Parts: sequence; structure tokens; C-alpha cells
Amino acid sequence: MGKNVTIVGAGLVGSLVSIYLAKKGYKVNVYERRADMRKLQMSAGKSINLALSDRGWKGLEGVGIADEIKKIAIPMYGRFLHHKDGTTGYQPYGKENQAIYSVSRADINMKLMDLAEEQPNVKIHFDKRCINIERNKLETSFEDNSTKKIETVSSDLIFGADGAFAASRLNMQLHSDRFEYKQHYIDCGYKELIIPPGENGKFLMEKNALHIWPRGSFMMIALPNPDGNFTCTLFLPFEGEKSFEKIKTKEQVTQFFNEEFPDAVPLMPTLIEDFMNNPVSSLVTVKCFPWTFDNKIGLIGDAAHAIVPFYGQGMNCGFEDCVVLNDLITKHKDDWDKIFPEYESLRKPDADAIADLAIANFIEMRDKTADPKFLLQKKIEAKFSEKHPDKWIPLYSMVTYSPHIRYSKALSEGKKQQAIMDKIMTTPNIETKWDSVEIENAILNQL
Amino acid sequence: MGKNVTIVGAGLVGSLVSIYLAKKGYKVNVYERRADMRKLQMSAGKSINLALSDRGWKGLEGVGIADEIKKIAIPMYGRFLHHKDGTTGYQPYGKENQAIYSVSRADINMKLMDLAEEQPNVKIHFDKRCINIERNKLETSFEDNSTKKIETVSSDLIFGADGAFAASRLNMQLHSDRFEYKQHYIDCGYKELIIPPGENGKFLMEKNALHIWPRGSFMMIALPNPDGNFTCTLFLPFEGEKSFEKIKTKEQVTQFFNEEFPDAVPLMPTLIEDFMNNPVSSLVTVKCFPWTFDNKIGLIGDAAHAIVPFYGQGMNCGFEDCVVLNDLITKHKDDWDKIFPEYESLRKPDADAIADLAIANFIEMRDKTADPKFLLQKKIEAKFSEKHPDKWIPLYSMVTYSPHIRYSKALSEGKKQQAIMDKIMTTPNIETKWDSVEIENAILNQL
Repeated sequence: MGKNVTIVGAGLVGSLVSIYLAKKGYKVNVYERRADMRKLQMSAGKSINLALSDRGWKGLEGVGIADEIKKIAIPMYGRFLHHKDGTTGYQPYGKENQAIYSVSRADINMKLMDLAEEQPNVKIHFDKRCINIERNKLETSFEDNSTKKIETVSSDLIFGADGAFAASRLNMQLHSDRFEYKQHYIDCGYKELIIPPGENGKFLMEKNALHIWPRGSFMMIALPNPDGNFTCTLFLPFEGEKSFEKIKTKEQVTQFFNEEFPDAVPLMPTLIEDFMNNPVSSLVTVKCFPWTFDNKIGLIGDAAHAIVPFYGQGMNCGFEDCVVLNDLITKHKDDWDKIFPEYESLRKPDADAIADLAIANFIEMRDKTADPKFLLQKKIEAKFSEKHPDKWIPLYSMVTYSPHIRYSKALSEGKKQQAIMDKIMTTPNIETKWDSVEIENAILNQL
Repeated sequence: MGKNVTIVGAGLVGSLVSIYLAKKGYKVNVYERRADMRKLQMSAGKSINLALSDRGWKGLEGVGIADEIKKIAIPMYGRFLHHKDGTTGYQPYGKENQAIYSVSRADINMKLMDLAEEQPNVKIHFDKRCINIERNKLETSFEDNSTKKIETVSSDLIFGADGAFAASRLNMQLHSDRFEYKQHYIDCGYKELIIPPGENGKFLMEKNALHIWPRGSFMMIALPNPDGNFTCTLFLPFEGEKSFEKIKTKEQVTQFFNEEFPDAVPLMPTLIEDFMNNPVSSLVTVKCFPWTFDNKIGLIGDAAHAIVPFYGQGMNCGFEDCVVLNDLITKHKDDWDKIFPEYESLRKPDADAIADLAIANFIEMRDKTADPKFLLQKKIEAKFSEKHPDKWIPLYSMVTYSPHIRYSKALSEGKKQQAIMDKIMTTPNIETKWDSVEIENAILNQL
């Protein structure tokens, strides 16, 4: 089989997989719908902060750019909680030195494009919108955004890496019998806001943390950026008592923020104009199957499995797709009749698992992070895990810091742990004896 | 608001709703992708038999064609079971005279088209493939199959009645934020076969029944046609031990049928060529929401809710959509800002319910109809229902003969009944005392 590859999409995953394939000797042409973002002023108002964690780092290490990205990433060692009454709290994300990293989507995407273009056998074509894939002929057609000319390219393999609303996947949905497909939107939307730096680029809140204002049915979060500002994201129901539909006027914005996020308001000088100008975006989960077709066409990243952002795993999961695929290319010596079936059967349960975990984590973040009982449970788990690291890794740590544990395994282990902790938490006076030998033994007995 | 309506699709539901709308004074243009079936020889090999029941009859009565259709419909009063050992059994579908009716999809569709065209304000345009709907402008574009010319029509309302793979719905999926969508294929496919008439058009099996060969993981069914033949449908897994992938050669067809359906084989002279020539088709469930957009565009029938055929309710449910819509047009005096929201909020739970019931009924038909315990349960329910018709209507009767009971209500009542019967069936010696006062009272006590 030849080694010409067409990749639809030069986003995070499209760019990274192009590098992996190039290093394996494939000749790669990447087609991107948008213009070259490296030549443009970025537009604000759409979520641009991501949390990079160990699965993502592993993907970057595989092509040798982890160190370079680390320079523009800000470690966040825990959740910094902002309560309604003005009090604050802090929950470490893992053991000492374990962190997730705030990075700008644009920065990392541009770095990946640069690196892709450094490969002699990768070429990125911009402003090319995928309009069709002829499955039988392996021909992909693109329309140029300005000339409107249609170009049709043949290749030996095609990757759809064009995101949650992938044209490549739609093509497969329309032309493949028995294609399983589901798109589900949660009831909350989000709007991006900003906390600018203080004088001399000073961070006005704790820099090395992910800030959360948990409010039960909604929340605001803030992630640090290298220039001293924080990207804030308000996650709020579209409809209902406290919702985007109820906050339409400037007065309503002021009232809502003063009531719900009093400590943030003084830090947000452009709050009202940002709120009025920035769009409300929706949050979709996409599940589909198969991910590969005729062992010639494959979906990867969000195109195969878009998830909500609440576990900070969307990009990390997509990068892990690349690592798994790369390992399988090595294992099966470029035999795509073996690579693609194993790729989709390995990754599908993991993608389903992180999709479900991400939905569940929204509830944890907006609601449970403010619940003393939940915090106590996390403390008990952390303590037990420290004493018995071979017996217990907290779910968050499995997902975030343990790339050797599959998402699907993390999900099933997490359920077992939760069942155990549900019992432990019913122990009388658990608040006073949470760090006793009795509790330790009770957990050990259940394992 | 004006009264010009565009309907995409002149299938069963598109044709029927055009008549309802015409009778309300709307000017209706119906665009059908296929050629006019009334001018063509029908192609065989695709399921053409449907089971019309009370919800469907009600839809036809509403436009005055129930009597005409009844002439070409064959009542089926029960299930006629064909066991592997050659024995047979019979299960009535309801009380005496309660039947479902075998009708040809083509016949009823052609009658509905005739009736639609009798309305002075309905025009059907054939060979027009919907390629786009401009939601904001209410413009629908169609490509002519032969000339390839594109025609764009404006109207005040648009209905998508173009079936399970609706172009209209796809358009909404692509251009509406927060559109919920799911398509799911069951693991079984189906292939159509035939039992021709005997001499002088004689039916070679019981005419007034739906024939089932239940075999656990698969089944064959046969429905009577007016000319004396039976349309047989084999429902079989795509893959696995007994599956379409395992039956590829003529020898394998012969062996499989001799083993599984010995009493049918002598009645199927063209079995092998039919099996080799006819396609294997797949079975999809489609769920989506919303069904209406800007109170100007609505989905109806399979376009809104495609279901598997095992409850015989696909057409009936689509016709019921038309009845509900018609009632709402009357109720809200042509105010579509009220009609469409109530239409989708009323019908969505009912469509979801019948979709789930249809999936469940596949298991009942292929598996439980051969189970003595299941048959006994049905007998107990029938007896109790006869004595206490105000307290108990069997689920099948609620769905099939009780248009005044919503599908969603039937589903929830059915679950309650099943919970009661699960307990009843654990009564010691239930086989001997099933029709005792003790059992009657035990059911009464649980109600």
C-alpha cells in the first residue's frame, strides 16, 4: 500500500497526528478549513484555555515538543474555591508537584503547525473546506474559501480530524449503513469573560490554581494565562430561574454577578461589555461508531468523540489517540488492515468512558466542590492512597496523572471506589475519626 | 400568516398530512424524491407489508378513506406460531374481532396520493430531491432527478415528511444549535422472501393471521397479501453463529432453512434465488429534538421518529402525528406559534415510548412467543382484563386498539403491569391455578 495520507483538519489533533505519521515515513497533506491562524489576529470570546495533563504531555513528548510547550504552560496544583460569602478554599489536584497545566489553545496549535511544517513530508493547506469524501475512490474534495474552486485529492489513507462538527464524519454518517451516531447537548451553555492583569502584569488571584465559583446548578471558572490575565468561563443553564435567558440587560448582569460572584466583580472591569458582546456557546457530546471505514479512512480526536470540557480531557484524549495509533503502526508494521480495527476497538470504550466522566465532573465541579462531606471523602481517599498507593489511586489521579491506566479502567475502578466510600461515609462520627486506623481497616476490608 | 405549505416527501405521512392541511384551507405543494410510483412497475425485495391498526385507521378516517383501504386490507386476528419441530400454535391479538390489518405499502401510498391530488389545493411534484432548506428565508431547494435543474420554492410553512433518512432533518441537524440527535441500528438485518399462492390464488397457510417462526435470537414472519401470497421477512443477526454472514452459498441457504423453518421450505419454491438476489436491509431507530423550528418548519412521521417495525406501529404512529396536528390546528385556529410547540411537546414522549416498545417487542416476538411461561402470563392477563376491563388493558391492546391511550401512557402502564405479573408468575403451581379466584384477588390487591 502507498503512503500518501490526507488529513482533514489542522487543529490540535490533526496537526499532531500529521507529525506522528510523517515520522513514520508517510507523505501527509493536511487541509484546514480556516485561514492560517499564525498570520491572523486571534478573535476573543471563544474558549481558548485548555488544561494539559499527563496523557497530553505524553502525546507531545512522542514528537519531542513537551519541553517547548511547558515554557508557555502554567501549572495549576489545585482548585481554588470562591464561595458566595467571600470565603475561599483550596483542594489539591493530587500529590505534591502533580498539576494540570493551563495552555492557550492557539499557542499550542500554532506550535504544532510549525513543527508539522518542519517535517519535509507534511504540507498544510489552509482555507480548504472539506465538501465530500468518495469512500470507494479515497478521494477527498475541498472548496477553497476565496476562489471557491474545488480540488479533489486522492490518497491511500484519509484521516478525519476536523473536530466535533466534522464534515468527514458527516460524510461517513450519510454514506455508511449501520453507522451509530449520537449528539447530545447539556442544558448549560458557556460565556467567556476576563480578569485582566494588575499593574506590571501582576496576577490578581492565585496564579497556580484553577479557580472555581461553585454555585450548585452553575459555576464560573478561571484559568491563568502567561500575560497575567485569567480567562473566566461562566457555565450557566440556557433556561430556568438562574439562566442566560434571564440575564439580558446590563442591570441584570450587574445584579447577577454582585449576588453570585461578589469577590470577582471588582476584578472584572469590562464585565458588562464582555457579557453583552460575547456569545453563549453550547456544549456537545458526540458518540459514534465505527471510527474507521474499509481500513482506509479513520476518525480521530473530537471528530470521533467530542466531549464536554469538565474533566479537562478533550485535547488530552485526542493526543492519546495519536499515541495509541502510533504504537499500533509500529506494532503492525504499517498494516492498516490490522491497525485500524485495533485502534477503534481499543479507543472506543476509552472515549465513551471519558465522555461519561466529563459529564459527571460538571456536577462535581459546580456542586460538590462546595460540599463539606464531599471534601472530607476526598481527604480520606487521599490519605488512604498515600499510605496504600498500590491499592488506591483516586479517580481524578487515574484520569489525569496515570496515562498507563485506560479511561475505561479508571471509570470502572472509580465506580468501585465510590461504592466503598459511600459505605465509609455513613460511619457514625466520620468527621472526627476520618483519619483513624478503624477507617483505614474498613476500607482495606472492602478492597 | 399566509397559508402556503411545502411538504418534503409524498410517502405515507407526507401524503396524508397534505390532505389534512388542504382540508383546512392550506395551499400545499408536495415534493417527492422518487418517481410517481403509480406509473411504475414496483420493485420487489424491500418490505412492502405493513400492519394497519386503530391509530392508523383513525388517521385514514379523518380524511374519509378508511373504508376504501379496508377493501384491500387483510385482517390478522392473531399470531400463528410455527415451531421448529413442525408443531404450530395460535395467540389471539386481542378480543374477538380485534385485528391488525395487512396492507401493501405501495397500495396505501398510491391511494393517499390519488386522494391528495383530488384536493384542488394540493399538487405533488415528483423526481424532486430536497437539497437545502434556508431556515431563515423559508426557502426549500429541490434538484430535478433528470434535468438536474434546481428549483427554490418559498412558503409560509415547511414540513419534513421524508422518512428515516430525511434530508429535511439533516438540514436542521446541521444548522440548528443544540439539536439532539441519535441514530441506532439493531444487530439484526432483514431480507424479504415470498410464499406464493397455490392454485387459483389459494392461501397456502392460514390467511387471517400474522405467521411467526420464533427462533430465539432470530425469526421469520409472514403477512398475507390479497393475491394469495405471503410476504416473508427473515430477521437475523448480521454477524455471529446464526447470521447473514454465515449464509452465503446456496447450500448454506438450503441447510439453514431446512433446519430452522422445515414447514416453510416446501411453500417457498423460489427461496434460494430470492435469498441470493434480495438485499439485506438494516433497521434503524432515530430520535431527535426539536421537531419544529421557528414555528415555521416541522418534522413529521419517520423524519421525526423512525422506529423498528416489531410493534407494527411505524405508519400508525405517523398517521397519529397527522391526527394530533390536525386537532391542534383546530384548537389553536391556525396559530402556528401555538400549534408547533404543543405538537412537539405532546408527540415527543409518545414517539420515544413507541420506539422503545418496538425494540422490546422484537425480543417478545422472536423469543418469548415460544415460551410457555410467557404464554401463560398472557392468558392470565387476558382473563383478568375480560373480567375487569376498567382495571386492566393488556399492553398490546393499549398500543394497538386504544388510540385514546397515548403511547407514553401505554408504556408506563405496561411497566406497572409487568411488575405485577412478575410477582404473580412466582406463585407456586401457577400453571394449575392460573384462573383461580386466588390469582384474581392477588392481582386486584396489587392494583
